[in-house]
Amino acid sequence: MTTMLISYLSKSGHTKKMAESIAKGANGTGCTVILKEIQKTTVDDLKGANAIVIGSPTYYGSMACDVKRLLDDSVREHGKLSGRLGGAFASSGMIGGGNETTLLSIIEALLIHGMIVMGNADIGHYGPVAIGAPDERAVKECETYGKRLGELAIRLAK
Amino acid sequence: MTTMLISYLSKSGHTKKMAESIAKGANGTGCTVILKEIQKTTVDDLKGANAIVIGSPTYYGSMACDVKRLLDDSVREHGKLSGRLGGAFASSGMIGGGNETTLLSIIEALLIHGMIVMGNADIGHYGPVAIGAPDERAVKECETYGKRLGELAIRLAK
Amino acid sequence: MTTMLISYLSKSGHTKKMAESIAKGANGTGCTVILKEIQKTTVDDLKGANAIVIGSPTYYGSMACDVKRLLDDSVREHGKLSGRLGGAFASSGMIGGGNETTLLSIIEALLIHGMIVMGNADIGHYGPVAIGAPDERAVKECETYGKRLGELAIRLAK
Amino acid sequence: MTTMLISYLSKSGHTKKMAESIAKGANGTGCTVILKEIQKTTVDDLKGANAIVIGSPTYYGSMACDVKRLLDDSVREHGKLSGRLGGAFASSGMIGGGNETTLLSIIEALLIHGMIVMGNADIGHYGPVAIGAPDERAVKECETYGKRLGELAIRLAK
Repeated sequence: MTTMLISYLSKSGHTKKMAESIAKGANGTGCTVILKEIQKTTVDDLKGANAIVIGSPTYYGSMACDVKRLLDDSVREHGKLSGRLGGAFASSGMIGGGNETTLLSIIEALLIHGMIVMGNADIGHYGPVAIGAPDERAVKECETYGKRLGELAIRLAK
Repeated sequence: MTTMLISYLSKSGHTKKMAESIAKGANGTGCTVILKEIQKTTVDDLKGANAIVIGSPTYYGSMACDVKRLLDDSVREHGKLSGRLGGAFASSGMIGGGNETTLLSIIEALLIHGMIVMGNADIGHYGPVAIGAPDERAVKECETYGKRLGELAIRLAK
Repeated sequence: MTTMLISYLSKSGHTKKMAESIAKGANGTGCTVILKEIQKTTVDDLKGANAIVIGSPTYYGSMACDVKRLLDDSVREHGKLSGRLGGAFASSGMIGGGNETTLLSIIEALLIHGMIVMGNADIGHYGPVAIGAPDERAVKECETYGKRLGELAIRLAK
Repeated sequence: MTTMLISYLSKSGHTKKMAESIAKGANGTGCTVILKEIQKTTVDDLKGANAIVIGSPTYYGSMACDVKRLLDDSVREHGKLSGRLGGAFASSGMIGGGNETTLLSIIEALLIHGMIVMGNADIGHYGPVAIGAPDERAVKECETYGKRLGELAIRLAK
């Protein structure tokens, strides 16, 4: 069984909707998808997943403190996530408002865990991004992203 | 006399329009504004300016090669630009398409020159960004950015 | 009176030593220096300072959660810090271990607040960095950085 | 046959030595390793490789202009590199001198191509880094990095 954990922080519901769209895309790839708020996500949840996809609203250009806490706590399992697949998604209030640097702050943490990260040539390059409430474009990008991550997770789990 | 050099690369005209809007904003602040294509900009031009504002389209997530060449060449004057004011602007094809990381690639180069960089609390945080052709929002942000940079350049030149 | 707040997180004492060295450099520039642990730093402390210098150990490639919390909380004063001077410093466990991206995560937050950030042509470009316990090089860079920040804060306060 | 292209720019020989050490690590994994200077590397070379590893000295915080040129030129094959494995390595003159942001500038370009990037939990997190001439630590990290990339390239090629 290949599992994908999608863990997110959402105050306004925007990042949550992105998480659900990624889950929708990943379903049907053969992955077992677990959707969880970041506050309820434990380090053991991370350890139990083949793919870890983390979403955050943009707070001052990087992942929110509540998201960072989980990653900081995960240091006690440092090295155990090596070779797993990772992904990132972010919502922000405006264009040029820090969503790309938020994605990168997550991607950097995943790479430091020794994880594998996948880019996208056609959709949001570092991961899907929504400006305010996810519009049709953002929702579609999330679904595509979830599908691709699911397929790669299955391949990597072999 | 306080001078602001706005140097840009533009294939489609989008980044050029941004440059002109920044120039419009800076005019009236007391700065002498020089608008120049990056291919015609020399290291001496950089050396002669109190404020240096660099614009690039987004090519693979960072400033275009033609923009980077000028910065790489500027190493022969390394240290001479310390304390000057710097700024960045970028156009890109899509949201989440690398414009923020393009801005940061420019900002990083300016900081390495020992320059001073100004953020924005209300408009494009790291500098103005356009998605495709600059729309009214982008044009307005460029004008605001130019005005603020001009005012700060005047203050720093005292 | 021009004040510089140096706020830091330190578990091992390394980042604290860096903070003290920056303070040492800033003393004598005419700035009143306030040295404070991040856990004791309030948003009002940020609001009361002309220059804000933030230090963090490198946790997964960006500032530690405890540092991010203060910045996330500062959103209630968003816009009020515009035009202030900002700076960053970081310690890390190893070379290539994420200290530069930690500095940038702080710098990005400062820019989003509309603050002004100063680079360095000769010492740690985005701010001082220590690998493990600050050695002589790191201590010296911190002192130089503090001195330059203090001088610029004085100039900007005029 | 799984091929790994290691393409690098080197003026002082430091980045070249890193490239050779990565090649040494990749040999024996079953990959056919191609070592090439960036000036001699063509877009077709990129297209022909299962894994693409790019090395650059640190010039103003991002990859050198000569490295960026190859990536900018590769736009004519945009999308064709999706799913390939990518990697980055960098040399720099000093600690805190921009080597991590150089790695990230390369990684960002690879992600925008839709490529897959692998982090490291124990060695240089975003890729190996040398300060000046590669010392024993740097050489060893390069070898380890090459070995891991080779093994993952083989797995992904299946």
